[in-house]
Amino acid sequence: MPSRKRTDLGQFRLTLPATSANLGPAFDAAALALSLFLKVRAKPADEFSIRARGRDAEICGQVQNHLILTTYREVLQGENKLVIPLALHIENEIPIGKGCGSSAAARLAGIGLANHFGRLRWSRSRIVGEAAVREHHPDNAAACWMGGLAIARMSSELEAQIARITPKGKWRLLLVVPAESLPTEEARKVLPEEYPRADVVSNIQNSMLLLTAFSQGRRDLLAAALADRIHQPYRAPLCPLLLALQPLTRSKGVLGVALSGAGPSVLMFLDPKADVNRTKKHVRAQLKGQNLYAELIATWITSRGAGF
Amino acid sequence: MPSRKRTDLGQFRLTLPATSANLGPAFDAAALALSLFLKVRAKPADEFSIRARGRDAEICGQVQNHLILTTYREVLQGENKLVIPLALHIENEIPIGKGCGSSAAARLAGIGLANHFGRLRWSRSRIVGEAAVREHHPDNAAACWMGGLAIARMSSELEAQIARITPKGKWRLLLVVPAESLPTEEARKVLPEEYPRADVVSNIQNSMLLLTAFSQGRRDLLAAALADRIHQPYRAPLCPLLLALQPLTRSKGVLGVALSGAGPSVLMFLDPKADVNRTKKHVRAQLKGQNLYAELIATWITSRGAGF
Repeated sequence: MPSRKRTDLGQFRLTLPATSANLGPAFDAAALALSLFLKVRAKPADEFSIRARGRDAEICGQVQNHLILTTYREVLQGENKLVIPLALHIENEIPIGKGCGSSAAARLAGIGLANHFGRLRWSRSRIVGEAAVREHHPDNAAACWMGGLAIARMSSELEAQIARITPKGKWRLLLVVPAESLPTEEARKVLPEEYPRADVVSNIQNSMLLLTAFSQGRRDLLAAALADRIHQPYRAPLCPLLLALQPLTRSKGVLGVALSGAGPSVLMFLDPKADVNRTKKHVRAQLKGQNLYAELIATWITSRGAGF
Repeated sequence: MPSRKRTDLGQFRLTLPATSANLGPAFDAAALALSLFLKVRAKPADEFSIRARGRDAEICGQVQNHLILTTYREVLQGENKLVIPLALHIENEIPIGKGCGSSAAARLAGIGLANHFGRLRWSRSRIVGEAAVREHHPDNAAACWMGGLAIARMSSELEAQIARITPKGKWRLLLVVPAESLPTEEARKVLPEEYPRADVVSNIQNSMLLLTAFSQGRRDLLAAALADRIHQPYRAPLCPLLLALQPLTRSKGVLGVALSGAGPSVLMFLDPKADVNRTKKHVRAQLKGQNLYAELIATWITSRGAGF
């Protein structure tokens, strides 16, 4: 048990990016960090309190069943450490429950706070591994903690094996977010148990081509390399934005389209030279033509991971 | 039809590397170029003739059913070009029929000769695509033509979509070649038609980690990233060297072990600081303990592709 006075631990700040996992073929394997952030400021207090502003401030402000605080408590209890009550200030830009890595960011925030206030001194792979076990997959957690493009797998129950690349050049993104959320478990239920060999080979080829597209800045590879046969075809009925927007590929400044995480949001890769507002207009028109509506958020791949 | 005199076309030289495809998880997706070469020198003559030396010189010297010449003829006939008879000098270092890319090198040699003597002016992707269609997979052909590590898929019937990376640092290899050859078709028959989702995800994750291991020189990722669930487990009974050598991973200078192509040869990745002769001794002892025998060829990943 720590015997230091609470004030020694001071104020602690953590900034965590939104993330987009799966990226077409790289199902359960890779994720990108987006420059939309969850910012958390915490200091020891007599009891837990939260002040939240920004996106989904109501959800972010509820002390009960709060993913950051629940994770913080569970990690400290698991390590037999004192659970120091915290006063949190949250400023959020990440859409919640829409396939943009909000839960990975919240869990990592909780783990980061526990690591700091419990003086756990966990390694990077232990921190990401803890978040990955809680998330049931490591890709969002790895990209959120490290920024850029992360590839991750669990090498044991507690440790994640992680690689990170910095995508070459600037990658302009358009995140297309519908009003309804979609629980990951529901999106997972629709997947088949088995896949024909040709589909497996296609996804292995495309995952590797996709990684090269980012690492070498080869935008010419992107559209074809985003083709997926493992999850998107089965999730498309749950995520109508995907089929509506895929036809824009290779036109109107759109380089490629993928489901963001398990959906329902869609991630569009844009030509950095194209006029974003013009592309937005085309996207809105395309959606309207199919009676669909979604929020459009222009963003970038960020090489920033969780910053202190 | 070309109307120039034959002598205008002069002598033509082509040097093509051996290649090792599949690389554990990257089944039908990626291949490495090895610094073992097939060297071909050709000039127009009154009739076809071959002089061969080096490895498997008897096979290389037979004019009948010769893979280089058959490909040369077929490509020219397909393009309605005159088939100019050639006098060939062949110097070979690539084991034939052992999963080391001998057929891709021979086919590309034939296509390269046809391209030169038929003045076809084919693009790189057309050349690799032609070889890939003849090979029924594009990975060896791409690595052979471009060197380094190649990722390839057929984007249409005739064009291959190709990416290439130069592995970071020096990569020492030990190619373990048994006496018996194994036709690729036979090694393909033993593969299942369908795969469980967990196996698919594992191979996607490992293929991407493997690519990062090479592009970033992260030898620490290699052993785990070479794990494969799509082809090696099924081919192991046909390729006894694999199970015999995998236990050496992470000891005796061995960083990782994979089947070379469809086998039966095995590719071992060695610590560049380790003493190759010592590792060879351990490999020989390990094989002898299981009544296995194989030729050991120390080589490197080469960034050299087909050179003129």
